[in-house]
Amino acid sequence: MKYVALAGGVGGAKLADGLYRSLQPKDLTVIVNTGDDFEHLGLYISPDLDTVCYTLADLANPDVGWGRSGETWRAMENIARLGGPEWFKLGDADLGTHLERTRRIKGGISLSSITRSFCQSWGISVPVIPMTDDIVRTHVITNELGDLSFQEYFVKHQCRPRVISFRFDGIETAKPAPGVFEAIHEADWIIFCPSNPWVSIGPILTVPGIRESIFGKKAIAVTPIIGGKAIKGPAAKMYSELNIKPSAAAVANHYKDLLTCFVIDNVDASEANQINDWGIISLTTNTLMFKVSDRVRLAGEILAFCEQQRREKRK
Amino acid sequence: MKYVALAGGVGGAKLADGLYRSLQPKDLTVIVNTGDDFEHLGLYISPDLDTVCYTLADLANPDVGWGRSGETWRAMENIARLGGPEWFKLGDADLGTHLERTRRIKGGISLSSITRSFCQSWGISVPVIPMTDDIVRTHVITNELGDLSFQEYFVKHQCRPRVISFRFDGIETAKPAPGVFEAIHEADWIIFCPSNPWVSIGPILTVPGIRESIFGKKAIAVTPIIGGKAIKGPAAKMYSELNIKPSAAAVANHYKDLLTCFVIDNVDASEANQINDWGIISLTTNTLMFKVSDRVRLAGEILAFCEQQRREKRK
Repeated sequence: MKYVALAGGVGGAKLADGLYRSLQPKDLTVIVNTGDDFEHLGLYISPDLDTVCYTLADLANPDVGWGRSGETWRAMENIARLGGPEWFKLGDADLGTHLERTRRIKGGISLSSITRSFCQSWGISVPVIPMTDDIVRTHVITNELGDLSFQEYFVKHQCRPRVISFRFDGIETAKPAPGVFEAIHEADWIIFCPSNPWVSIGPILTVPGIRESIFGKKAIAVTPIIGGKAIKGPAAKMYSELNIKPSAAAVANHYKDLLTCFVIDNVDASEANQINDWGIISLTTNTLMFKVSDRVRLAGEILAFCEQQRREKRK
Repeated sequence: MKYVALAGGVGGAKLADGLYRSLQPKDLTVIVNTGDDFEHLGLYISPDLDTVCYTLADLANPDVGWGRSGETWRAMENIARLGGPEWFKLGDADLGTHLERTRRIKGGISLSSITRSFCQSWGISVPVIPMTDDIVRTHVITNELGDLSFQEYFVKHQCRPRVISFRFDGIETAKPAPGVFEAIHEADWIIFCPSNPWVSIGPILTVPGIRESIFGKKAIAVTPIIGGKAIKGPAAKMYSELNIKPSAAAVANHYKDLLTCFVIDNVDASEANQINDWGIISLTTNTLMFKVSDRVRLAGEILAFCEQQRREKRK
């Protein structure tokens, strides 16, 4: 069976890696959020694409949710000494990625072509495709500080301001990147990785045509919320601030019209009935991914569950 | 007495450092060539300004003529892995300088303001001023490869092509940076550091008004050519290719109409008479600067020589 994984940052990258380690390369495509992309210090930075690619290439820093392992910080140290902006930390090796991406973007090369080339250089054998080659910029509208670009909200203000709403600038006219529709069309299953539903998976589904192309496909989402909390990032806080009790069920409800199946954590087993009542088949398991072996185990369980669904349908 | 030093890269930076270590800060201004500046990987790079500043701030790599001491290369290694351009090596700490300079240039801040701010951050207590805030680009016209930007000639092609002529694009309309005229006006002596007369000191003197402002000033040049060879860089090769025998005297002749005095190396003592015949008073000494103590010694001898000229004039 063929799979498309929709992914944002860390959690998404981890499950994408589990799938990558479990499937034949021809059977997986990863589509990545670019709403977090921004320009900083003149560099075109794609945080989610980099997190996914570094993770698949085994270059990622295992301790934090971004950047590269064994990273050094000499450029940032010098920028700091010169009084430049320090709020967004760019490691030395990571800077190479941004410099070369920016050089190619300015040369008129599309983000998806650049990503394909980078993946080849890094030895990643599955297609990793940005959701769009067009500029989409996630903004978080907050009560205290008004309209913040995503990285201002996320990094500069550490997700502190209370969220009122989101806006994906440029999304109305954005076209899915080459290969996105084809991959979804050919896929037997769409897997929504455990990424933030509002600002990671949300932008992908809002690119015109992508949501529609997923309708009628089998789709399975993995909750990024466990026991009412997000493993990482502001997803739970966002639900609360938008007056929705953060829970696995809330995430299932978020995607309700798209889902065939939903994966919840053992600690949220009591929510399975509610999710099943919406006509979504739930898989209850350990969804935490601390080690690489956890990624492979969870991916394996999901793939087995998808396989089982197909078999049961055939009966 | 007050001094203005005109400097290009390595040799110029070393003598500027000797002067910096020998004079009160209020008595020295360093004016630096920007004809070598270029944009690379989207970064605004000022090689001579950086060499001078890193040297004065004691941050320079003592082994090669550029970059910083203890430098790391992780960004370049990643750029190379991604198939990006590797011909111009940018160290990780050095990248911080270029990123922050580029950020400010794009914000509409002038190169001279940026340099002033950087010098403050690096604890450099004398003014280091780019010759101009306007874009001037040195091109080397060669027989084999035609018109090359300076860095293409210097770094990419390792000065191999035969020089036909030079062109300083943009220089006709370039204005000296703020402070340049004032420093020259207030100076008792202008010191031409041992930098390439064609492509380091040449552009500075070609900025409209600078040559004229030096006329009538006492000026002393230090030969970058010793025993017919350049200590570093293509100066001697350029003289040969332009059908001038490379020698200290050739350098003195180059600047003839501007000079009061000229410093030659002991090995070229036989050229002193010819230089004196042009009405230029020569100082013959050891001009090699291997160690910091050599810079201070040479600077000290030059300053004593300038002082002596003033006293002799008074007699």
